[in-house]
Amino acid sequence: MIAARVVAGPLAAYAAEHVLFSVQDGIASIVLNRPERKNPLTFESYAELVAIFRAARTDEDVKAFVVSGAGGNFSSGGDVFEIIGPLIAMGAKDLLRFTEMTGDLVKAMRACPQPIVAAVDGVCAGAGAILAMASDLRIGTEGAKVAFLFNRVGLAGCDMGACALLPRIVGQGRASELLFTGRAMSGAEGERWGFFNRLAEPQALLDEARTTARRIADGPTFANGMTKKMLQMEWAMGVDDAIEAEAIAQALCMKTEDFARAYHAFAAKEKPVFQGD
Amino acid sequence: MIAARVVAGPLAAYAAEHVLFSVQDGIASIVLNRPERKNPLTFESYAELVAIFRAARTDEDVKAFVVSGAGGNFSSGGDVFEIIGPLIAMGAKDLLRFTEMTGDLVKAMRACPQPIVAAVDGVCAGAGAILAMASDLRIGTEGAKVAFLFNRVGLAGCDMGACALLPRIVGQGRASELLFTGRAMSGAEGERWGFFNRLAEPQALLDEARTTARRIADGPTFANGMTKKMLQMEWAMGVDDAIEAEAIAQALCMKTEDFARAYHAFAAKEKPVFQGD
Amino acid sequence: MIAARVVAGPLAAYAAEHVLFSVQDGIASIVLNRPERKNPLTFESYAELVAIFRAARTDEDVKAFVVSGAGGNFSSGGDVFEIIGPLIAMGAKDLLRFTEMTGDLVKAMRACPQPIVAAVDGVCAGAGAILAMASDLRIGTEGAKVAFLFNRVGLAGCDMGACALLPRIVGQGRASELLFTGRAMSGAEGERWGFFNRLAEPQALLDEARTTARRIADGPTFANGMTKKMLQMEWAMGVDDAIEAEAIAQALCMKTEDFARAYHAFAAKEKPVFQGD
Repeated sequence: MIAARVVAGPLAAYAAEHVLFSVQDGIASIVLNRPERKNPLTFESYAELVAIFRAARTDEDVKAFVVSGAGGNFSSGGDVFEIIGPLIAMGAKDLLRFTEMTGDLVKAMRACPQPIVAAVDGVCAGAGAILAMASDLRIGTEGAKVAFLFNRVGLAGCDMGACALLPRIVGQGRASELLFTGRAMSGAEGERWGFFNRLAEPQALLDEARTTARRIADGPTFANGMTKKMLQMEWAMGVDDAIEAEAIAQALCMKTEDFARAYHAFAAKEKPVFQGD
Repeated sequence: MIAARVVAGPLAAYAAEHVLFSVQDGIASIVLNRPERKNPLTFESYAELVAIFRAARTDEDVKAFVVSGAGGNFSSGGDVFEIIGPLIAMGAKDLLRFTEMTGDLVKAMRACPQPIVAAVDGVCAGAGAILAMASDLRIGTEGAKVAFLFNRVGLAGCDMGACALLPRIVGQGRASELLFTGRAMSGAEGERWGFFNRLAEPQALLDEARTTARRIADGPTFANGMTKKMLQMEWAMGVDDAIEAEAIAQALCMKTEDFARAYHAFAAKEKPVFQGD
Repeated sequence: MIAARVVAGPLAAYAAEHVLFSVQDGIASIVLNRPERKNPLTFESYAELVAIFRAARTDEDVKAFVVSGAGGNFSSGGDVFEIIGPLIAMGAKDLLRFTEMTGDLVKAMRACPQPIVAAVDGVCAGAGAILAMASDLRIGTEGAKVAFLFNRVGLAGCDMGACALLPRIVGQGRASELLFTGRAMSGAEGERWGFFNRLAEPQALLDEARTTARRIADGPTFANGMTKKMLQMEWAMGVDDAIEAEAIAQALCMKTEDFARAYHAFAAKEKPVFQGD
């Protein structure tokens, strides 16, 4: 298996090899880019994605992510010949190393403070569906087909956190059906069920995702990172403890300059310009 | 900051100063009443609301709450000049005291045994949205605009338990969008997403809420309080432990007179009259 | 109260006395069958259902369940005269024994590795609604009326895990309304809210449920059981721990023959035939 990658230095200067990657005006863009095969994931692209999201944790110049796929599809998931084939031949130790590595991708996506917006058109299957699920917001199209198809390749639906995350997004009953049958969820279903925040026309999809990311990136970055952290921390916390945790977190946010900026802008009937401190 | 208030004696006799408050036939009504400013919350009204819901915990004459706003809006949240202004000038200690106090309001709403029905029309923003969210049932209107707009004033979405409660009401993806962008949820969205139990015409809204509260207040009060307690206790409990907890709680409810009353009424083909013991 | 039953030997050979029970081609069928009274549950049928689902835990020949009711209704719940009457006369010890026994049914349904598909038409009330809720998938009809009507018989909504399970299926606000008012959820509501995976015509309902069960039974049985186990285990687990748990579980599934079968079938452009090992 491929060794872990590390991004040394700022993400804006990172030259990605296995995905398209760029940072512009605070928005990092990741494009899964192997359109002739519907953008499958490989050992190399997994390692690169983990490295990017881990580096994002401390990169203050990146304020939001947009993740998309090239050529009208999001991602077909782990490549059958480049990933599944080798897995068949592996022993327990290496298999666990692989599943832990794929899990590390979701962990890194949930641990970075930047909200992640997924733009999902066409095929979004297996690990591709996980990537969309592990994002914070999802914009889809009528033609999106999101399939947690693990059981169709002989595996369990419990892949990379799906049994925890998917039920909280679409409800326990709908998640159960998707995970036990592997059937595709349509774009319309995804919107009705809360998987997609909204649908867009295919040609407008990326713009919609970027506009949403822009709106978030223009917000108070420190506070948004705190929102993301608490959504994660409170996952399995009792209500009263969650309220206590938020009281501390919000008191900290009240000591940021962005809070004062918003107040002074309001008093002056101006729009606040947040700076993330 | 305003010191904590205490309601001494029965709620029905309490003379509220900062909200309209009355108790009639077992239903307590709270009206946020500063319509010229869209019913903002102040330090004083927070303290009064905390006191009311805390007193409700042991007040057997109150069987349900209805919370609404005067003049076509629910609440615009914490008053910009009366709350946000002073917060800008506070140190860490006083800020935490404030956020703990606002959190105490949600804790008190979740800890009292009475189901709370929110009637939401017009503006329902910031701490106003939290008040609606922390209620048990919500009836809205087409024109309701519910905005968890904390990040638009430079703060985090993790306010008064929102990162815990909102995802369980509308789903993790929809809650994430509302908290990261601060955008308003429309009445129609709120109904589709499960935030509102249903919509009513503005002029019928309060009657609808009261009818729902009436139905609940006419039910078995002790058992309803147990339902509310378990919804809270089981928030972060495993399934088997939740089943065990409910076995004990329901066995206790089977020793109430109301359970026997329902059985005897059924046998006599009558409608049961519950008395809460 | 009736003593616990035990199924000795394979489920396929079990001669049920209080429900209709059969196993065919890996699908176990349970029909609540007392149509003249809308299929109420009795002490005896509870004990039999617990025994069946417990035996299923180690019965490799059963790969999925279909649960339905005879005569156009699912189940009216605990029989008023055969169950509620005796409960009124019981002391604390026996009442707890009863609520623990009903809870055991939900525990057994959640602990068996087989996905359970409920086919719900007509009346589905009280413990009947719980049976549907405790299943993994639910197919309903327009005419289904699902009522968690406990508070209408003087009891709490916290029955057999309802305060834990129902909010995760339909959302916290909708579950609160159903549990505090006891009102019936219509088929259309149930589909919109995620309680029903879909609706079918009454005459096609059982076929739809069987087709879904067939699809699941033809899948990788070991992996499906792991999906069900993790949906349960991760209920109150933090996100990162859930990801770790799934990494281990999925690595184990990658050592099954079914995973290799799927890969070889894909390479040969054939449909995989899973065998559950």
